[in-house]
Amino acid sequence: MSGNVFGNILKLTSWGESHGEYIGGVLDGVPSNILLSENDIQPFLDKRKPGLNILSSQRKENDKIELLSGIFNGKTTGMPIAFMIKNEDKKSSDYSKIKDLFRPGHADFTFFEKYGNRDYRGGGRSSARETAIRVVAGAIARKIIPHIKIQGALIQIGNLKINENNWNDEEINKNNFFCPDKQIIPEWEKLINKIKEEGDSIGAIIKVIARNVDTGLGEPVYNKLSAELAKAIMSINAVKSFEIGDGIKVAEMKGSENCDQMFIKNSKPEFLSNHSGGILGGISTGQDIIIKFAVKPTSSILIRQKTITTEFEETEVSTEGRHDCCIGIRAVAIGEAMMSLVLADYYLLNRIYKDFD
Amino acid sequence: MSGNVFGNILKLTSWGESHGEYIGGVLDGVPSNILLSENDIQPFLDKRKPGLNILSSQRKENDKIELLSGIFNGKTTGMPIAFMIKNEDKKSSDYSKIKDLFRPGHADFTFFEKYGNRDYRGGGRSSARETAIRVVAGAIARKIIPHIKIQGALIQIGNLKINENNWNDEEINKNNFFCPDKQIIPEWEKLINKIKEEGDSIGAIIKVIARNVDTGLGEPVYNKLSAELAKAIMSINAVKSFEIGDGIKVAEMKGSENCDQMFIKNSKPEFLSNHSGGILGGISTGQDIIIKFAVKPTSSILIRQKTITTEFEETEVSTEGRHDCCIGIRAVAIGEAMMSLVLADYYLLNRIYKDFD
Amino acid sequence: MSGNVFGNILKLTSWGESHGEYIGGVLDGVPSNILLSENDIQPFLDKRKPGLNILSSQRKENDKIELLSGIFNGKTTGMPIAFMIKNEDKKSSDYSKIKDLFRPGHADFTFFEKYGNRDYRGGGRSSARETAIRVVAGAIARKIIPHIKIQGALIQIGNLKINENNWNDEEINKNNFFCPDKQIIPEWEKLINKIKEEGDSIGAIIKVIARNVDTGLGEPVYNKLSAELAKAIMSINAVKSFEIGDGIKVAEMKGSENCDQMFIKNSKPEFLSNHSGGILGGISTGQDIIIKFAVKPTSSILIRQKTITTEFEETEVSTEGRHDCCIGIRAVAIGEAMMSLVLADYYLLNRIYKDFD
Amino acid sequence: MSGNVFGNILKLTSWGESHGEYIGGVLDGVPSNILLSENDIQPFLDKRKPGLNILSSQRKENDKIELLSGIFNGKTTGMPIAFMIKNEDKKSSDYSKIKDLFRPGHADFTFFEKYGNRDYRGGGRSSARETAIRVVAGAIARKIIPHIKIQGALIQIGNLKINENNWNDEEINKNNFFCPDKQIIPEWEKLINKIKEEGDSIGAIIKVIARNVDTGLGEPVYNKLSAELAKAIMSINAVKSFEIGDGIKVAEMKGSENCDQMFIKNSKPEFLSNHSGGILGGISTGQDIIIKFAVKPTSSILIRQKTITTEFEETEVSTEGRHDCCIGIRAVAIGEAMMSLVLADYYLLNRIYKDFD
Repeated sequence: MSGNVFGNILKLTSWGESHGEYIGGVLDGVPSNILLSENDIQPFLDKRKPGLNILSSQRKENDKIELLSGIFNGKTTGMPIAFMIKNEDKKSSDYSKIKDLFRPGHADFTFFEKYGNRDYRGGGRSSARETAIRVVAGAIARKIIPHIKIQGALIQIGNLKINENNWNDEEINKNNFFCPDKQIIPEWEKLINKIKEEGDSIGAIIKVIARNVDTGLGEPVYNKLSAELAKAIMSINAVKSFEIGDGIKVAEMKGSENCDQMFIKNSKPEFLSNHSGGILGGISTGQDIIIKFAVKPTSSILIRQKTITTEFEETEVSTEGRHDCCIGIRAVAIGEAMMSLVLADYYLLNRIYKDFD
Repeated sequence: MSGNVFGNILKLTSWGESHGEYIGGVLDGVPSNILLSENDIQPFLDKRKPGLNILSSQRKENDKIELLSGIFNGKTTGMPIAFMIKNEDKKSSDYSKIKDLFRPGHADFTFFEKYGNRDYRGGGRSSARETAIRVVAGAIARKIIPHIKIQGALIQIGNLKINENNWNDEEINKNNFFCPDKQIIPEWEKLINKIKEEGDSIGAIIKVIARNVDTGLGEPVYNKLSAELAKAIMSINAVKSFEIGDGIKVAEMKGSENCDQMFIKNSKPEFLSNHSGGILGGISTGQDIIIKFAVKPTSSILIRQKTITTEFEETEVSTEGRHDCCIGIRAVAIGEAMMSLVLADYYLLNRIYKDFD
Repeated sequence: MSGNVFGNILKLTSWGESHGEYIGGVLDGVPSNILLSENDIQPFLDKRKPGLNILSSQRKENDKIELLSGIFNGKTTGMPIAFMIKNEDKKSSDYSKIKDLFRPGHADFTFFEKYGNRDYRGGGRSSARETAIRVVAGAIARKIIPHIKIQGALIQIGNLKINENNWNDEEINKNNFFCPDKQIIPEWEKLINKIKEEGDSIGAIIKVIARNVDTGLGEPVYNKLSAELAKAIMSINAVKSFEIGDGIKVAEMKGSENCDQMFIKNSKPEFLSNHSGGILGGISTGQDIIIKFAVKPTSSILIRQKTITTEFEETEVSTEGRHDCCIGIRAVAIGEAMMSLVLADYYLLNRIYKDFD
Repeated sequence: MSGNVFGNILKLTSWGESHGEYIGGVLDGVPSNILLSENDIQPFLDKRKPGLNILSSQRKENDKIELLSGIFNGKTTGMPIAFMIKNEDKKSSDYSKIKDLFRPGHADFTFFEKYGNRDYRGGGRSSARETAIRVVAGAIARKIIPHIKIQGALIQIGNLKINENNWNDEEINKNNFFCPDKQIIPEWEKLINKIKEEGDSIGAIIKVIARNVDTGLGEPVYNKLSAELAKAIMSINAVKSFEIGDGIKVAEMKGSENCDQMFIKNSKPEFLSNHSGGILGGISTGQDIIIKFAVKPTSSILIRQKTITTEFEETEVSTEGRHDCCIGIRAVAIGEAMMSLVLADYYLLNRIYKDFD
């Protein structure tokens, strides 16, 4: 109930603090006899890795995955898969200046109020470091649903949006932004450099698409697939909005515009459009599932801000450590991972009832 | 696992189809010795009731709540509270025309694919009728957290947004729109009448505020309070987006703008702003919790649309029955209910650890 | 978390007090397209019915099942199945004498301490009346696993045990004891009459066998099939022991006696014996699952007993109302029901991984 | 759902195979600010340790606990506590002889049937090695409920039962059997030596008592405290029966003998006896909770037994490796651990409702 366990059939338990020796997780519910090795996981972890480029945190972590259980002779056994990642670049001394105060915009204050203690070492458990575990679990989840292709991309930084018409999947991994529209990259670089000079940070929007999804995933009332995706995405640090399909734009639409009409093609049901984002009544239609989410600008900035100490006295703080000025970039890999976990979980759940009779 | 159970400590199980004899629910986990009667619930149900005004569906339902268990001598006993509502105005004959086709934009197709059957009677379990159960449970949940005030309102129809500066709580229940800004009402009426004439429908945005919230509600990683609220809200039929605090706007903000700085007032921690929406690191700060969500225009419109039959042949459909042209209006009561359920659930959960030592 | 929800995939929620208008339940997770009507359920409910014969409580209840949802055109739809039973023979006046005291051996005292209230009407929620809901759910569960045959029987009253060699399934429903050994019946009748004359009650042992069980049901560590069966059975009122296979006798056995050796018959694995009771390492072997449980003699007896009042003063009490002198007899139907619920739940769960690749 | 997660509020996730590099677990839901170090855990682990004495398996394991997260400055932080134990004495070569066959009485066959693979290395995940994780978690659980004293003891080997009148808590840790009656020890030693010479094994019965338990723990219907204890205990490898209070003996008792009458002592409710074992209606009475369970003789014996190969051919097997001839001895520590986990879990859950108003 303390919220470190995620999922129904496919259950991820995670543990570890930003500045402990290790962080780790246990993924229970993976079917047996799936080929799995560290090589299936490391590329996704590398994508999330801090210090990837000048845009991101300069924290240096190899983030090397170690698989500890649940695999025998190169295949999953059906038993829980435990894994760990060493925290190589933890310099607790970095944090002496913030030991006795709450960084505004961080979870420092709420953790202190809830737990009556202060793990000042880099945010402890509330650190974005925890998201590495999600990426590992997401990579394993993909192996359960190899037919479903999950692709995330950054589509907006500040007020600079990509042109969706320029979308090209193949561009995404060729640039430091995971951006599918290569034309916007020079503008983004200029913006990021300006933000960096100011010692400030900036928000972003991520889009994740799942293609070739089975029809019938999701449960109709409280566990709608869209609801579970929303929970999964909103559980990522710094995410402040979630949209499916046309999202917030539906407010301005008419029913005649928003409705996805149907027709028959090659004897199969097809839709004339995909305003719904691939889910109707909480259940996948077989169309692409399309979600978007906004990531706030990190509060770890060089600019001085008012705050209070753990003794409830006023003070000021500026963050001098290593931090990203656009954490949204790294959130691409995390959004993909959460989508993978939810789809694999509901894919497994749906096997119960599929072709029951 | 079939998704008809919601919540952790406070657990709602719901049942019933749009056109069955009754719909009902069971709320388990309500503490004992709380005064509770039908009178605590009926007003909230009335607010959601179809046929409330010319704006809404003309379906006539008294929607009278019947409490069946868990109460003795006017007080809760700690045992599950079961309740039912009679479906008075079910005319199954209305639905003969759609019996053999999938209404586009509805869950007809996905239910058919998932369950291999077709309950054509008004959408069966996927009908918005189910949301009456949420409203009942939400009304009971409020009794668990009487100090927290939860208020929803409609803030946008189509592209017509209220002026937030005109916000007045007292106006909300004085008009048919649950609108806090009386100046926009004439414009909204004009828009709605136009949509109605066209036989079309229109989307909307709802805002829900929780005031006087305890500090410390929510769990830090996967069960962030914001994540649970997102799931709760996105599980409502037709909701396509969820935002907390500044929501989608954070994408365009700098850290120095978005961060809520802190100070001391009367020896207590205070915030200079509330961009976060009352939640940091997934845990409530004690500030107002502020969420928004967009509701799509219903696909039940008079305008003819292409669709297919259950035999996978092409056809057309227009909805002649009783339907709302802006279902977002009724979603105000439902959004409040889901917020109440989540806050009561996490309030109870937080009692475990509060003052443990 | 308040314990009125049972099961994983197949989830039963129950509600209602002994002396409310109705008791009821909701069974979620039943696959679609299963033929189901009241006729599938009523016979099992009749078997549990009080007042069945002179041996049991004289409470008269028709216990007529009403199905409220989840069924359309005679088949399950995959939606939750809600049901109710009217409490016809509730005479609250019967209970005026015990209103202000705790009946020893009952849950009166613990409910009062836990919930701070006293629902004196026949035990309220702690009444064995609740078990009628289990029987309904169990009857529906059988329809999910029609190939598995679940048969319970009474095998001991007081110190009078049946001769297992005389076991005859066909006798079980021919006598008032659900006894498979007709030779012991005269002795049991004599014992019961004696106990009745004394105004006392007597314990019993029930055995439940599941035949033709699939191999592979159950999960290996904490959710062993044997562990889930133990929980299910021990959750029945008045049950004080649970055994699987040789049960308590294994303490006195050697490994060479207890181990079920294997051989091949018609190219298939077979066992030379079934000491394990059909489960190894928590997973079903395909052999018969055999469990036993002991039911205590009810504390509702005519003989006066020392007890205390709700004001914590000493007093005495004897139960003059309608009560069974051997509640174990009615527990046969309940034990079968719980076995059915657990096996159907784990049968559904096992479908996820069966033939995954 | 794959059964490697145990508990409600206090949630244990475990992982690891008998012959992997490590086994480990994660305990989520431990309150913050509890003093905790390896020293609180190691003594309990030592008690379970194989190779403790000539009676047990000769496998040599230091079983040294490593705490990985959730602790800062010597206190729990409220975050998940991860821990590992190195498998020091894994000699996979030992297992070459059983690689291609199913050891009768073990989980080899059921794992093969369920998962379609064979982790022949010492039973893999079905090995009793997993119980070390339970012991660690149980030791941490005790720190949550320091006022409750949980004591297990061996009370029967084969047909040799202790004399309960000789029970002396202080003897328990002074002998190799965890036996509270020192008079029976010479007889047990003789029996064990004889069994050993025969190359056979023998069953046993363990009793666990919890003293100074709070009133009100447990939930009334499906999650009765007795039901949860039954599940916890029956989930331990090789356990075949569970009893609470008078247990199986209630079958032979009359209501007038079995009922625990009440009186007042120093203005407080007291019971004249404790036949119920400290639980009425599924809720703790405040009396001692007393449970018993039988552990089967291990099937790993020197005596040859018929079995089959993974190719479904008949063969024979005898176990030459290191094994206990009475695994019941080590089950004492495991029974205590499971009782600790359940009581701590329900103690935390009960805090929600305690003094709610």
